[in-house]
Amino acid sequence: MPEGAADGRIEGFLDLDLDRAQRRGAPEAVLCDAKSVEQVAAIAAEYARLHAEGRDDLGPVLFTRADADRAEAVLAALPDAFHDPAARLLAWPAAPPEPTGGLVIVACAGTSDLPAAREAELTARYLGRPTRLIADIGIAGLHRLLNRLPELREAACVVVAAGMDGALPTVVAGQISAPVVALPTSVGYGVASGGVTAALTMLSACAPGIGVVNIDNGYGAGHLAAQIARWAPAPIL
Amino acid sequence: MPEGAADGRIEGFLDLDLDRAQRRGAPEAVLCDAKSVEQVAAIAAEYARLHAEGRDDLGPVLFTRADADRAEAVLAALPDAFHDPAARLLAWPAAPPEPTGGLVIVACAGTSDLPAAREAELTARYLGRPTRLIADIGIAGLHRLLNRLPELREAACVVVAAGMDGALPTVVAGQISAPVVALPTSVGYGVASGGVTAALTMLSACAPGIGVVNIDNGYGAGHLAAQIARWAPAPIL
Amino acid sequence: MPEGAADGRIEGFLDLDLDRAQRRGAPEAVLCDAKSVEQVAAIAAEYARLHAEGRDDLGPVLFTRADADRAEAVLAALPDAFHDPAARLLAWPAAPPEPTGGLVIVACAGTSDLPAAREAELTARYLGRPTRLIADIGIAGLHRLLNRLPELREAACVVVAAGMDGALPTVVAGQISAPVVALPTSVGYGVASGGVTAALTMLSACAPGIGVVNIDNGYGAGHLAAQIARWAPAPIL
Amino acid sequence: MPEGAADGRIEGFLDLDLDRAQRRGAPEAVLCDAKSVEQVAAIAAEYARLHAEGRDDLGPVLFTRADADRAEAVLAALPDAFHDPAARLLAWPAAPPEPTGGLVIVACAGTSDLPAAREAELTARYLGRPTRLIADIGIAGLHRLLNRLPELREAACVVVAAGMDGALPTVVAGQISAPVVALPTSVGYGVASGGVTAALTMLSACAPGIGVVNIDNGYGAGHLAAQIARWAPAPIL
Amino acid sequence: MPEGAADGRIEGFLDLDLDRAQRRGAPEAVLCDAKSVEQVAAIAAEYARLHAEGRDDLGPVLFTRADADRAEAVLAALPDAFHDPAARLLAWPAAPPEPTGGLVIVACAGTSDLPAAREAELTARYLGRPTRLIADIGIAGLHRLLNRLPELREAACVVVAAGMDGALPTVVAGQISAPVVALPTSVGYGVASGGVTAALTMLSACAPGIGVVNIDNGYGAGHLAAQIARWAPAPIL
Amino acid sequence: MPEGAADGRIEGFLDLDLDRAQRRGAPEAVLCDAKSVEQVAAIAAEYARLHAEGRDDLGPVLFTRADADRAEAVLAALPDAFHDPAARLLAWPAAPPEPTGGLVIVACAGTSDLPAAREAELTARYLGRPTRLIADIGIAGLHRLLNRLPELREAACVVVAAGMDGALPTVVAGQISAPVVALPTSVGYGVASGGVTAALTMLSACAPGIGVVNIDNGYGAGHLAAQIARWAPAPIL
Amino acid sequence: MPEGAADGRIEGFLDLDLDRAQRRGAPEAVLCDAKSVEQVAAIAAEYARLHAEGRDDLGPVLFTRADADRAEAVLAALPDAFHDPAARLLAWPAAPPEPTGGLVIVACAGTSDLPAAREAELTARYLGRPTRLIADIGIAGLHRLLNRLPELREAACVVVAAGMDGALPTVVAGQISAPVVALPTSVGYGVASGGVTAALTMLSACAPGIGVVNIDNGYGAGHLAAQIARWAPAPIL
Amino acid sequence: MPEGAADGRIEGFLDLDLDRAQRRGAPEAVLCDAKSVEQVAAIAAEYARLHAEGRDDLGPVLFTRADADRAEAVLAALPDAFHDPAARLLAWPAAPPEPTGGLVIVACAGTSDLPAAREAELTARYLGRPTRLIADIGIAGLHRLLNRLPELREAACVVVAAGMDGALPTVVAGQISAPVVALPTSVGYGVASGGVTAALTMLSACAPGIGVVNIDNGYGAGHLAAQIARWAPAPIL
Repeated sequence: MPEGAADGRIEGFLDLDLDRAQRRGAPEAVLCDAKSVEQVAAIAAEYARLHAEGRDDLGPVLFTRADADRAEAVLAALPDAFHDPAARLLAWPAAPPEPTGGLVIVACAGTSDLPAAREAELTARYLGRPTRLIADIGIAGLHRLLNRLPELREAACVVVAAGMDGALPTVVAGQISAPVVALPTSVGYGVASGGVTAALTMLSACAPGIGVVNIDNGYGAGHLAAQIARWAPAPIL
Repeated sequence: MPEGAADGRIEGFLDLDLDRAQRRGAPEAVLCDAKSVEQVAAIAAEYARLHAEGRDDLGPVLFTRADADRAEAVLAALPDAFHDPAARLLAWPAAPPEPTGGLVIVACAGTSDLPAAREAELTARYLGRPTRLIADIGIAGLHRLLNRLPELREAACVVVAAGMDGALPTVVAGQISAPVVALPTSVGYGVASGGVTAALTMLSACAPGIGVVNIDNGYGAGHLAAQIARWAPAPIL
Repeated sequence: MPEGAADGRIEGFLDLDLDRAQRRGAPEAVLCDAKSVEQVAAIAAEYARLHAEGRDDLGPVLFTRADADRAEAVLAALPDAFHDPAARLLAWPAAPPEPTGGLVIVACAGTSDLPAAREAELTARYLGRPTRLIADIGIAGLHRLLNRLPELREAACVVVAAGMDGALPTVVAGQISAPVVALPTSVGYGVASGGVTAALTMLSACAPGIGVVNIDNGYGAGHLAAQIARWAPAPIL
Repeated sequence: MPEGAADGRIEGFLDLDLDRAQRRGAPEAVLCDAKSVEQVAAIAAEYARLHAEGRDDLGPVLFTRADADRAEAVLAALPDAFHDPAARLLAWPAAPPEPTGGLVIVACAGTSDLPAAREAELTARYLGRPTRLIADIGIAGLHRLLNRLPELREAACVVVAAGMDGALPTVVAGQISAPVVALPTSVGYGVASGGVTAALTMLSACAPGIGVVNIDNGYGAGHLAAQIARWAPAPIL
Repeated sequence: MPEGAADGRIEGFLDLDLDRAQRRGAPEAVLCDAKSVEQVAAIAAEYARLHAEGRDDLGPVLFTRADADRAEAVLAALPDAFHDPAARLLAWPAAPPEPTGGLVIVACAGTSDLPAAREAELTARYLGRPTRLIADIGIAGLHRLLNRLPELREAACVVVAAGMDGALPTVVAGQISAPVVALPTSVGYGVASGGVTAALTMLSACAPGIGVVNIDNGYGAGHLAAQIARWAPAPIL
Repeated sequence: MPEGAADGRIEGFLDLDLDRAQRRGAPEAVLCDAKSVEQVAAIAAEYARLHAEGRDDLGPVLFTRADADRAEAVLAALPDAFHDPAARLLAWPAAPPEPTGGLVIVACAGTSDLPAAREAELTARYLGRPTRLIADIGIAGLHRLLNRLPELREAACVVVAAGMDGALPTVVAGQISAPVVALPTSVGYGVASGGVTAALTMLSACAPGIGVVNIDNGYGAGHLAAQIARWAPAPIL
Repeated sequence: MPEGAADGRIEGFLDLDLDRAQRRGAPEAVLCDAKSVEQVAAIAAEYARLHAEGRDDLGPVLFTRADADRAEAVLAALPDAFHDPAARLLAWPAAPPEPTGGLVIVACAGTSDLPAAREAELTARYLGRPTRLIADIGIAGLHRLLNRLPELREAACVVVAAGMDGALPTVVAGQISAPVVALPTSVGYGVASGGVTAALTMLSACAPGIGVVNIDNGYGAGHLAAQIARWAPAPIL
Repeated sequence: MPEGAADGRIEGFLDLDLDRAQRRGAPEAVLCDAKSVEQVAAIAAEYARLHAEGRDDLGPVLFTRADADRAEAVLAALPDAFHDPAARLLAWPAAPPEPTGGLVIVACAGTSDLPAAREAELTARYLGRPTRLIADIGIAGLHRLLNRLPELREAACVVVAAGMDGALPTVVAGQISAPVVALPTSVGYGVASGGVTAALTMLSACAPGIGVVNIDNGYGAGHLAAQIARWAPAPIL
C-alpha cells in the first residue's frame, strides 16, 4: 500500500465507498462502462489487496455493464469471481449471500430483454433475496401471462423488463398486489428505438403500484427490488 | 347564388370537395375548429342552399370538432341536423345510411376517452357501417377485457381509443383476427400529457395488425374503420 | 337499482372495479379530472347507494385530482367524506384504516411541491400505513436535509417529491437504506416547466434504490409506498 | 425432444405461439434482430424438428429483420426456406399460400424505401393475398403518380412507404377509396433522420383513411394490409 | 421632442432602425405581440411625430402580430393606417408602393391557414411587389391544385402556407420553376399541434427549391418572397 | 412567536435560510410564483416580525416572480419595500447596498426582453454591484451593437438577455474580455416559443466565455453576475 | 436497350425524371447515399447509354452525397465527370453552363462547414450561376465579417452555412438587401450535435429575409439560390 | 510565406484570429475534431512558421478535442507542445503562464467525467490561473463532498463536471459563495445518454450562482472560469 494512501482510495480518480454496506444496507457496485480498462483493473486489484490484507467486510462487490475487456480485467485480479457475460455482470466473491426476505421475480417478454432482466435478477440475488426469472410472458399473447399469474402472485416484488411499447408492467401490476419495478429496455426500433417510448409508457401506466428505473438499468431495478422485498415473508417452497 | 360562382365555392376561402363521395367513397367532412364561426355558418348555408335547389347527392355531411358556437352556427342553417355535443359532431341529414358491410366496434377504457371514441363510432355509422361502442375495458383490470373478447371477435374492425399509456390496442390486437385502428387520446397528465406517449406506444406495439391515427382524431379512426369493414360480411344478429 | 344493472356498473361509461381490494390489496380510486362533474357525481351516488344497501366492503374509496366542482359533487352524495383541497383528494369513509406496516415518510423541499406530497401522504395513510410529512428539506441548503437524516432513516419507504432540477431523491437515497419513491412535480419554469426535467433527473439518478412515478402522480407514489412498507416492522414510537 | 418440454418451448428464452394462426388468422413471425444468432438457430431447429415429427399446421413462418448471419442460421436448419436479402426476410415453407381476398399494392417513391416496401409486400403475400409492388411514384414529380392512379384504384388496400417528408401517403389516400397503410421509413438525413418526421407527417395527414405503423415496420404494414384486404373481392385479371 | 433625444429613439426601450430601408431595401416592421400596449402606442406616436416634422422617408411601416388592443393603439396615433384584423397587420401609410418586379403568389389549402397567408401577401405588397392569394388548393384533392398550376407558374415566387402535415409546399415546388417559400402554420392538433410537424416536413421536402421560415411567420415569408421576386420580370396582365 | 418555533420557520411549509448570507455571501430570495398568496403573505409577515424584534442582519430580501396579488401580499406586511412590477420583483429594505466591485451591465435587444433583463439588473444591484441596463442592441442591426462596444468593455460582467434565436450573447462575448452570463427569455413564437431554442443556441455558442442560466431566470443571472464582478475593480466614473 | 423499356426507366427501382429540366428549369440530381452502389452504377450507365445514343438534352446531371464507392461507380460509367470528394458531388458533363443571372455567394465560418458550403456552391454553378465561396467569416470575430460586407453586398443571393449555434445567417441578413438561404450543418457537439440547434436558430432568426433548408442539404441550398438569382443582373467584374 | 498571403491566413479555409488575445484577453484555440488531419497540420505549421519568423506574441495556443491522429499532426509541427491525451488537449508552448488571480477548482464525481474536467482545468491553467482538480466527490455519498467543502471554499470559481443526473453543481453551489460553472458531460445511458438530461438539470438548478456551458465543453468551462477568477485574490498557500 502506498504511503499516505487510504483504504479504497486510488489517487486521482477513485475513492471507494467502502462503508456503503453499512450506510445503505447494500454493497458497492462498480459501473464499468464509464471507466477505462485500466481503471477497472486498478479497482479490482484494490479489492484483491484489501482481501489479502484480511478485510472480510467487503462483499459482495458487483461489477456492472462490463464488456469482454473489462470483465477480463476484473477476472485477472479476482479470478474466482462469478461472471455472467450476457448480463455483463461480475460478482465477487462468487457465492451469493444466503437468501432472506421475500421472493423477487424478474419477468420479461422474450429473448431480447433477457440481458437487462438477468442483470436485475443477479443483483437482487447478490443483495440477498431469493429470486426467479420468467422469460416468456408477453401482452400480445395474454394466455402466457395469465398462465403465470399464480406464480407471479407469490413474489414480494416483481421486476418487469420490457422494450418496444413497454406495456407489460401495467398489465402485470393490475393483476397482483406486490409492487412492480418497471425496467424499460433499449430493445426496439423506429419510435421505440433506445427505450424512451417504453420508459414513457411505464411512467404513464394506468395501474398504480409501479416504480420506474432508467432504461437498461437492470442493476438499479434489482437493487430496488431487493430493498422492497427485504421485510417480506420468505416464499413457501 | 351569386353570379359567376360555382356550386360549393365560397370565394376567398373555400372550395367544397363535392365530388369526394364519388372519388373516395365517403362524403365530405368539415373540420370546424380551424374555422371561424362565420366561416362555418357560411358553409352550412351553402349546403342548405344546394339542398333547396334540389341537389340530393350531398350527404351525409359531417361537421367535426365543433364547439358550442360552431354547432349553433350549423344548426341555424341546417336545423334538422344530428348533433352529439360530447363528440363535438354534427351530421346532416340526421339519418345515417342503411348499414352495410362488417361490424365496427369502438372500444375504450373509460369515461375520459369517450368523446374521441364516440366521434369514431358516429363517423363509421354515417359512412354506412353497423357500429357498437364498448366503454369499460381497460388493461389494469384484465377480466373486463377478457369478458368482452367474444363480442370483440364479432367485429370486422375494432377501433381502440386510449390515453395515458396507450397500451390497450396492443392487448386487444393480440386476441383477435380483425384489424385494429389505434386512436390515441390527449387524456392524461405528466409525461402522458397531450397524448404523444399514447401515440408512441401504439406505433411501437408488439402485436401486428394495428394502424395508428393522429391524437384525438376520432373522425379519421372511424373513417378508416368504415373503409376496412366495407367488404366484410354483415354481423350475425 | 335499475333493472338488469350490476353493482358498480353505470351503463355507457363506467364499470367500477369493486373487487380490486381483493385482487390488488388496495381499494379503488376515482381519477376525477378526466371525468365530467356529472360523471363524478354519478360514481359517488353509486357508492352511496351500495352503502345504503348494506355493502360494507367498499372502502376506503379515494377521489383524486378533484377540483372544487368535482369535490362538491362528491360531497353532495357522500357528505361525510374527508376532503383536502390542496391535495385535491377526497376519501370516503373519512376515517383511515388502523395503520399497519412500516412508516411512510413523504419529503419535499418546500411549499410548491406540497400538493403532490400531501396527496402521496394521504394515499399511503388511507391504504393503511403510518405516515409523516417533512416539507422543508432542499439540496440548496444541505444542513436542513442532514438535520433530518435520523428521522428519514426511521422510514420503511420515503417518497421524495421535487420539481425544478429534481435532484433531491438522489441525495436522500444515497443516505438511507430504505427504498425511495421519486415523485417529480410540474413545479418549475423554463427548461424545468411541466416537470419533464425533474422526471429525467430522477430516472438518471446516480444512487440506486429509486423508483420513479409520473409527474404529479402523488396518488401513484403513495400507493407504491404503501405496498413497499406493507411488510416492514412498525415504527418505534 | 427433451423430457418434460412442450412443443415450441425452449426453456429459458422462448415459448413459441403455435396457436396464433388459429387465434389471429395469421402465422407466427420471428423478429430476428433482437435475438442472438444462436437463439435464431434454435428456433429454426425447433420448427424443423416439429416438421420432421409430422406437424403440418405450422406455416408459413416468417423470419423478419434477419441480417446475413441470422439468415444463414435459419437456412442451416430450414434449407429450403425462401430468402429475400434486401427485405431481410425468410419464409418457410417457401411457397406462399394460394392468394385469396383483395389485391394489396405496396407503393414507394424510389430505391431507398424498397427494403421496407418489399418486406411489406412479401408479408402480405405469405399471409395469403395477391400483391403488387410499385416503386417509382413520388410527389416531387406528380405525373408519375397520376399515371399510376388507375392501377392504385384496383387495390383493396395500398401500403405506401416513404421516408424524408413522408408526404406520399396523404396524396395517394386523397385519390383512392381503399384504405392506406402508411409505412414511414428511416431513410433520410437532417431533420428527417431516423424517420420520425415521416411518421409525424403521416399521423398528421389531411386526408382521412390512413393508418400508420412504426418506422421501417414493413412486416406490420404487410400484416395489417393482408387483414384489411381479407374480405375484399379478388382483383380482376 | 425631448432634449437630447435622437430621432426614433425612445429612451429605455427602443431605438428605431430608421435607416433600414436604405441598408436592407425594406422598411422597418414593429413586432407588436412582444410589446405592451403602451410601448406600441409610443412607437406609433414617434412615427406620427416624425411625420409631422416633415420626414418623408419613413414608410411604409408595418405593425405585425397586432391584436385588437395593440391595433387600436396604433390607429389612435396613425388613424389613416391600413388594418387587416385577420392578418393582425397594420401598414402606414395605407397606400402600398407602386408594384415592381415579379408576381408573388401566396397559396394555402383552406380557411385556417388564411391569417398567415394573408400576412405574407400584405407584406410582399407593402414591400412593392404585385401579389395574389390562392386559398383553395390542397393535396387531399389534387385536382384543385392541378387546376391552378398555370396560374402558379406565372409567379416569380410562391409562398405556400400549410399546417397539419405541411406537405403542400413539396407538391407545389415539384411542379414549378420558381422558388417556393414554405410557411408552416400552427394550425393543427395532436402531433401536428403548434406547427412543428409542418416545419419538419417542409425542411425534409423531397423537391429542391424550397426555403422555410418560422411557424406562423407570414411577415418573414412575405419579406423573403418580395426580395426574391425583386428582379424578376413583371407579370403579363 | 408561537411556543417552540424557531426564527424563520413556519411549521408545515417553510424553513427560511436565514444564514444564507453568511454561507453564500448573498441574501435569501423568495420565489413567489410557486407559492400561494397566503404563503407569500406569511413569509413577508415573518420578516416583518423578525425586524420588529430587532434583527438587523436580514436583508436585503428579494421576492421574485411576484404577480400583482403576491406583490400586494408582500407590500401589506412590508409596506416600504421596493417594487418593480415589470420585473415582478420586490426588495426589502428598499435601499440597495452601497455598490462595491466591478460594473454589471445587463444588455438586451429590445422591449420584450426587458422584464427578465430588469430582474437581472435589480438582483445584481441589491447584491451590491454597480449596474447599468442597455436595452437597444440587436444583431439584426449590428451598428447599434458596435456603437455600444466601448461601454460594454467597461463591465466586469455582462448579462445578455435574448429570446427568439438567442444569438446576441455569442456576438457580445466575441468582442469583450469580461465573462458573459447568457439569459434566454421565453419571448418568441413558432420554434422559438418558450425559449428553448434560445437556450440551446446559447449553450452552443461558438465564442467561449459564456455561462447560461435557465429561461427567464433573471434572478439567477443577476446573482451570478454579482458573484463574478465581486472582486473586479470599480468602474471609472 | 432492353425490349419494352422506356428511356430513363430501370424496371423495379427507378424512373428518371428526364423532363425535369423543362418542367422545373433545373436538371435531375441523383441522391446517392440512399442507393446501393449497384443502383448508382446502373443509373450512371443509363445516362452513358442515352448519351451514346445521341441524346444531348440530358445534362448537367448531379450525383450528390456520393461516398468514395458510389463516386467510383459513377466514374466507371462516366469517366469524364467532374468530382469534388469533399463536397461528395459529381457533375456530368464536367463543364458547367455559361453563367447567367446574379452572383451567388456561399459563406461559412470555417473549415468544418466547408463540405456543405462547397456542395451548395457547385450546385449553383452547375445550375448556371456565377458563384463565389467565402470561408472565413464568423460571428465570434465580427471584424472578419465586417471586412467582407462590401463583397457580400454584390451578391443576388447569399447562402450562409453554419453549424453549432447557427447564428451567422441572421447577422449576415441584417446587413444586406439580398435574400439569404440558411444552411444548417451537422457540425457540432453536445446540444448542437446533429445540427438541430442550428436549424432552430435559423428558423427563429430575428432578421427577415431568410429561408432555411434541411441540415447538410447543400444541394437544396444551392438549387434555391440559383433559382433566386436567376433574374438578377449579372455581377460587375 | 506565399506572396500576397497575410499572417495567420490559409487561403480557402482559415483566417487565424491572431489579435484575439488582445481583444478578449485570452489566446486562440483550435477546435480540432471539426477539421481534417491535413487542416490541423497546416494550422500547426503556420504557428511554427510565425514562431520561426520571430513573432513572440502568439501563445499559448490550445488545440482542443484532438484525437490521436490530430494530436500527432500537431506534434509533428510543434514537437515541444504539451499533450494530455485523456483531455484530448495540446498546448504550445508547453509552459503555462505564471498563475495570477484566484484559484480555479475543477470538481467531478468520478472517473468517467475526468476527460472533460481535465480539459477545463488545463484550459484555466493555460489562461493563467492557479488550478486544482478534485475527482472524487459525488452526491450519492455526501460525506465525500462535505469533507471537501473547506477546500472548495478557497476557490474563486469552481467548475463542476457531472454526467447522468447532473445534480452535483446545485449541491456545491448551495454550500459556497464563489460562482459555479456547470459542465454537463455526455457520460450516461438511457435517458441520461448524451448529456442532455445533465444539461437540463443544471439549467434548472434550485441554487443560484450557476452558469452552464455546452455538454463536454471543458474548454469553454475552463475559459469562463479563468475569466471569472481573473480579479480575485490569489489563494493562500
